[in-house]
Amino acid sequence: MLAFAMRDLTHVFAAAQAGDVTAKGRLLSVIERGGAQANAASEFAAQHAGSAYTIGVTGAPGAGKSTLTSALIGQIRRLGDEVAVLAIDPSSPFSGGAILGDRIRMQDHANDGGVFIRSMATRGHAGGLSLATPAAIRVLDAIGYRWILVETVGVGQVEVEIAGNADSTIVVVNPGWGDIVQASKAGLMEVADIFCINKADRPGVAETLRDLRQMLALSPGPPDPTAHWRPPIISTVGHTGEGVAQLWDAAMAHREFGTSTGTLDRRRRERISNELREIIARRLEQRARELITGAQWAELTGQALTGQISPVAAAEAILAPVLRSLPPSPMP
Amino acid sequence: MLAFAMRDLTHVFAAAQAGDVTAKGRLLSVIERGGAQANAASEFAAQHAGSAYTIGVTGAPGAGKSTLTSALIGQIRRLGDEVAVLAIDPSSPFSGGAILGDRIRMQDHANDGGVFIRSMATRGHAGGLSLATPAAIRVLDAIGYRWILVETVGVGQVEVEIAGNADSTIVVVNPGWGDIVQASKAGLMEVADIFCINKADRPGVAETLRDLRQMLALSPGPPDPTAHWRPPIISTVGHTGEGVAQLWDAAMAHREFGTSTGTLDRRRRERISNELREIIARRLEQRARELITGAQWAELTGQALTGQISPVAAAEAILAPVLRSLPPSPMP
Repeated sequence: MLAFAMRDLTHVFAAAQAGDVTAKGRLLSVIERGGAQANAASEFAAQHAGSAYTIGVTGAPGAGKSTLTSALIGQIRRLGDEVAVLAIDPSSPFSGGAILGDRIRMQDHANDGGVFIRSMATRGHAGGLSLATPAAIRVLDAIGYRWILVETVGVGQVEVEIAGNADSTIVVVNPGWGDIVQASKAGLMEVADIFCINKADRPGVAETLRDLRQMLALSPGPPDPTAHWRPPIISTVGHTGEGVAQLWDAAMAHREFGTSTGTLDRRRRERISNELREIIARRLEQRARELITGAQWAELTGQALTGQISPVAAAEAILAPVLRSLPPSPMP
Repeated sequence: MLAFAMRDLTHVFAAAQAGDVTAKGRLLSVIERGGAQANAASEFAAQHAGSAYTIGVTGAPGAGKSTLTSALIGQIRRLGDEVAVLAIDPSSPFSGGAILGDRIRMQDHANDGGVFIRSMATRGHAGGLSLATPAAIRVLDAIGYRWILVETVGVGQVEVEIAGNADSTIVVVNPGWGDIVQASKAGLMEVADIFCINKADRPGVAETLRDLRQMLALSPGPPDPTAHWRPPIISTVGHTGEGVAQLWDAAMAHREFGTSTGTLDRRRRERISNELREIIARRLEQRARELITGAQWAELTGQALTGQISPVAAAEAILAPVLRSLPPSPMP
């Protein structure tokens, strides 16, 4: 139902750009499924993308990311801009569909035509989240959204990597020491451009602020030492909107910093580089699998299963003819 | 400090098999770092592995996985067996080290020489969790552990996949509807061999049981339709140990089922197959990156950044000479 012929792509994009919600949904479903059509859509989108600014909102389940995202939507709408939200978070009510629909605050925006919300499943799908997410952002950018909020659960290898790939990443924690320890163990300290202590109406904010500062002092410093951005720490109460304006200002300050110092361009280049590597890896893997017949694959996995060979040795056996056929490596 | 020469491998394995905790730790650190030494260790381990049974414990942060894992450790110890625990869960006190050390119940086992606990970071490292985890399990198997408990956070693409790769997977939920919805969205319904409603001293157990049964009835059924395992639902109170014996019995019933029906062998074969694919993908990706010089890569990412070409087209440009050099694909 959702598929479309390649020649329809221009029309679907035009409809989406004109505001057709069904067309937007179709494009994102195509991206989510992966394969040739997703590549074509991503290809088409690449020609029209490049104007959007992405803000990531990440943190542990229950930290209040969705409520904050909802508040940021309101902030952007008050500026008169439209906004798209990509929810990559199984705990997000955004991705809850009808099940949680009537229970949640963010339905504030459900009838606002200037807000487009889309969830992407954490569960495995062709190409994986690490390929689908940048392609989905590119499509939302190409159909005209200047602001894209990406809500990502701050747990999981792929998810934390995606969270760190936004133009500005907000890491949400709650008052209480355990939450910061968990965020740190999940690798969130390294991806934070802005820290948000949400639910700041609860006790322990001062201690959390102190602990967070200590943790930051212990961290290895910015990935790019020429850029001296110090992540600010903003206290918010998502459900009352307290502090949300300051959070937005911090995001805009980080944006200004990124633009004026060139760190934004460097970060986007790194992101494209990661995406390229991911596409190449998937493509070559597929090609390598085609190179061995089902029987050979079954025999090698059987041998690896019984310990006759290790998986590494089995992989070497499969790769040997492939690698021999490649042109020689250039001198370093 | 942790590295060792290849020729030492036999000695380090022998020491680890004899119970030397430092040697065990060194082997797992080598696996965690990835690369040639990790491959050698995995290779060596493959010759001595194949006797361990792995039980995965997964669920959302805060579901009580660590407390249950601790209770299962006690269960195994009462049988007189030794046990290894691999914690792949940023919310796990197991992986908290000294920071949370004095606050947690599982330090019950800290001085028990028959229990070996090791955490693996969620944050990115060479090779990634999806490669390091099976290799770590193989090493623990090879050094003599018959039981390996793998505690994984049930959020995140890679983590849920790892959770589903155990011989028996226990999915832990708590009373309350939201938790089941979240588990379902994260893809945990599909990987569960056994459901555990933990914290069953809280209200809402009957409703959760009913909701879980409804959810199971809606799910697409077992991945292998010839194997009619129906995931049992066990209620537990982790901190009192209530229901833990039943949880263990359910795991053993699933083990018996897997052994007698051949589903265990099929699952292990699938696991090896996944690992092979992952190794091949990483190796080819590395090779493809060597094939282009820094300048070419920079130019292509620059073009992709400015929208002159899409990442897919850039990947095609890099892959074209590589794919041409490969032997022709066999007939399907």
